Amino acid sequence: MKRIGFQFKVRQDRIEEYKERHKQVWPEMLDALRAAGWHNYTLFMRPDGLIFGYFETEESLEAAQAKMAATEVNTRWQEHMSAFMDANTRPDETFVELEEYFHLD
Amino acid sequence: MKRIGFQFKVRQDRIEEYKERHKQVWPEMLDALRAAGWHNYTLFMRPDGLIFGYFETEESLEAAQAKMAATEVNTRWQEHMSAFMDANTRPDETFVELEEYFHLD
Repeated sequence: MKRIGFQFKVRQDRIEEYKERHKQVWPEMLDALRAAGWHNYTLFMRPDGLIFGYFETEESLEAAQAKMAATEVNTRWQEHMSAFMDANTRPDETFVELEEYFHLD
Repeated sequence: MKRIGFQFKVRQDRIEEYKERHKQVWPEMLDALRAAGWHNYTLFMRPDGLIFGYFETEESLEAAQAKMAATEVNTRWQEHMSAFMDANTRPDETFVELEEYFHLD
């Protein structure tokens, strides 16, 4: 099992609405994440909208993302979330996989 | 069990040395963390030195930190790490506990 850390950023002026939607993630989206091997998955937010994600998976972030990208529900979810992304910042500028440098079980 | 996320920052010009020290964390420091209830603890780094920490603990970040602060080895470890902290940034400006807003088991 590998541990994955990543970050991205959402619009600071829409944080509350963004968090609200994450209290009601569609059951079929949760099922798709489970089926794609996203385990013990948590999202954390800094007050300015910077987000840190942590999950555990068998293979890699790329593989876990590719499995989600192949699902129809993920396409709908990303559209549902697109309004919260900063139009002035390209997602690939804020989406960064982070390097694990220490672990204690 | 609670999931804790936090960030802080180290000097970008000394990242490699900082990571090297984390390949050789003192066994007594690891023992102290375990005894203080730091479980499944991982540290991740962004290329500019921003660090994201994740761990699981019974009570809270404050309680887990207080237990470590009471140990002699932690005082020595923090001194051992102080050279990597940015002198222009107060640790309490970069140390931020992050808010969990989503979890999937």
